[in-house]
Amino acid sequence: MIKTRLTQLFDLTHPILSAPMALASGGALAAAVSKAGGLGFIGGAYGDTDWTIQAFEDAGGARVGCGFITWKLAENPDLLTRVLERAPAALFLSFGDPARFAVEIAAAGVPLICQVQTLRDAQHAANVGADVIIAQGAEAGGHGEKRATMTLVPEVADWLATHAPDVLLLAAGGIADGRGLAASLMLGADGVLVGSRLWASAESLAHPEMVKAAIAATGDDTIRSTVMDVARGLNWPERNTARVLKNAFTDRWHGDLDGLLGVAEVEAARWSAAWEAGDVAVANTFVGEVAGLIHGCEPAAEIIESMVTEAEALLRGAVSRLEE
Amino acid sequence: MIKTRLTQLFDLTHPILSAPMALASGGALAAAVSKAGGLGFIGGAYGDTDWTIQAFEDAGGARVGCGFITWKLAENPDLLTRVLERAPAALFLSFGDPARFAVEIAAAGVPLICQVQTLRDAQHAANVGADVIIAQGAEAGGHGEKRATMTLVPEVADWLATHAPDVLLLAAGGIADGRGLAASLMLGADGVLVGSRLWASAESLAHPEMVKAAIAATGDDTIRSTVMDVARGLNWPERNTARVLKNAFTDRWHGDLDGLLGVAEVEAARWSAAWEAGDVAVANTFVGEVAGLIHGCEPAAEIIESMVTEAEALLRGAVSRLEE
Ligand SMILES: Cc1cc2nc3c(=O)[nH]c(=O)nc-3n(C[C@H](O)[C@H](O)[C@H](O)COP(=O)(O)O)c2cc1C
Ligand SMILES: Cc1cc2nc3c(=O)[nH]c(=O)nc-3n(C[C@H](O)[C@H](O)[C@H](O)COP(=O)(O)O)c2cc1C
Repeated sequence: MIKTRLTQLFDLTHPILSAPMALASGGALAAAVSKAGGLGFIGGAYGDTDWTIQAFEDAGGARVGCGFITWKLAENPDLLTRVLERAPAALFLSFGDPARFAVEIAAAGVPLICQVQTLRDAQHAANVGADVIIAQGAEAGGHGEKRATMTLVPEVADWLATHAPDVLLLAAGGIADGRGLAASLMLGADGVLVGSRLWASAESLAHPEMVKAAIAATGDDTIRSTVMDVARGLNWPERNTARVLKNAFTDRWHGDLDGLLGVAEVEAARWSAAWEAGDVAVANTFVGEVAGLIHGCEPAAEIIESMVTEAEALLRGAVSRLEE
Repeated sequence: MIKTRLTQLFDLTHPILSAPMALASGGALAAAVSKAGGLGFIGGAYGDTDWTIQAFEDAGGARVGCGFITWKLAENPDLLTRVLERAPAALFLSFGDPARFAVEIAAAGVPLICQVQTLRDAQHAANVGADVIIAQGAEAGGHGEKRATMTLVPEVADWLATHAPDVLLLAAGGIADGRGLAASLMLGADGVLVGSRLWASAESLAHPEMVKAAIAATGDDTIRSTVMDVARGLNWPERNTARVLKNAFTDRWHGDLDGLLGVAEVEAARWSAAWEAGDVAVANTFVGEVAGLIHGCEPAAEIIESMVTEAEALLRGAVSRLEE
């Protein structure tokens, strides 16, 4: 078993958190990850109260955390109070300024996890009291920014070591197997956040046709874009693009925002209908570059088990790479 | 000492290659890297024959390799013949189709190293006979593409394991210290290619003002753009952007290519003069996200030594992260 400050802080068997993925991470996935020895997160993402509370029900009493898209939570801040009443194992904020919510979360005695995409935001998160910082690289599925996991993790680690040594650091973006987990530990992380790989799991709410498309894809087949959000009328901050599988929709509109805005209503309806139907030619599959490392859709426990087994073997064998 | 297939293939002390960086990797840097136990590369980059042959002279007989920007070499293919006459330790091609040159290189008995930015190009490189493939992530300094080191390396490793197990694999992009080296080995690489970190070395030809700017920067301060090449009239393929430090020039022109083209001659002259003068407010400093991990400009041997020492400690200590 791999022991880190993360497994200590949350009393986990494995240093793995599942990402609070909008519309994919319901109670079943979160509970399955926690039962497998990691810590699972409900994706309270777009701030829908009923959906989120139901997800806690679906978790069936398992110890899970909950994540929010920060700028969305700001539109429905009461949801935070409702979720804190459920005593989540941790509260996870990403994409926006966590300062405004940090006080209420601390007052509830719930650990605060902030996912950040730049060194600057990592510094800010530490300053407003984050207990755990997740450095998310651009290879990640879903929303994010530009920096890469490979450099962001060690750079944030160096800053934390000097300025906030008690704050834990996790790596996110591009981690789908034991190689990614072992590499993240080498980079200075206390553990990892896994999104796409667990999105393609038996317990995920992802549409089966989208999971199928991700399994068939390579990492070359993804793109970061804003056209899905523009079409849907989601007012994401300009800095946040989302990684998805390229398809006819991104081929047509990526790079032609003005054109898209001219027909936004029609395209939004078409895209949303395709999303419901799992029509991957029109609606985009939200998944990261690790699409090329995903070859099946197993139960979350199996995915975590094989990730850990592979990482353990790599860590155990590492010394054998040395020679006098 | 870290032993891998790379140290075996080239009989090296350390599994580290220095990048053939245009205008920065002259004979002195290449020789210093080779003497330090890695393998150094001359950056014959923009295909200037005199510059490249002089760099071999400057290497003073040290065993070094030579790298070319493939689409540039195609404009001056005789240079390849001239360089092969110098019996380089290896020939390094990046950015373009290596097929056309592979035969001549093989006939000279010189190992072929292909740097690639996608899985598809890795497959192609293996198919045309590359002995070593370098998977370069977008966090890299200088030219590159979109995929990240963290996912491209394991994905290429998996493909090679099945289709071309004798081809070696190196990681490039984001590797500046022992953490990056150890992480790359965990991801399945046989070694690493180091660019930016050695660009900021005593033997590099980089302008001291630019190195100073990189040392002062964080990884948040870089951007991938094409405006430097558009200004200079370099006809880089559209897919290749370059990572540089943001400055007033990229602030003004990134995202306004049409505007830049309208005043290209003036801006090109201004940019080039600033480049010569080391005026980093106008000319862009070519460096990767690891700018945030660079804190000095030491001799190459020192940089390599501390990188290896740190990686060895991480590999040796890896097993202690495990608990029954
Ligand atoms: C389908 C999908 C939906 C996501 N939704 C959210 C979200 O609602 N909130 C959030 O903070 N992160 C979200 N993410 C990003 C994850 O938190 C995480 O950073 C990312 O998945 C890690 O990279 P990986 O996909 O390579 O594992 C999402 C990711 C995916 C793949
Ligand atoms: C200043 C600079 C110039 C570069 N020039 C070249 C070049 O001429 N040819 C090439 O193949 N790669 C070039 N590269 C890219 C390197 O080969 C390598 O992929 C990259 O530096 C690795 O990422 P890192 O900078 O994070 O170490 C250059 C990189 C830098 C920083």
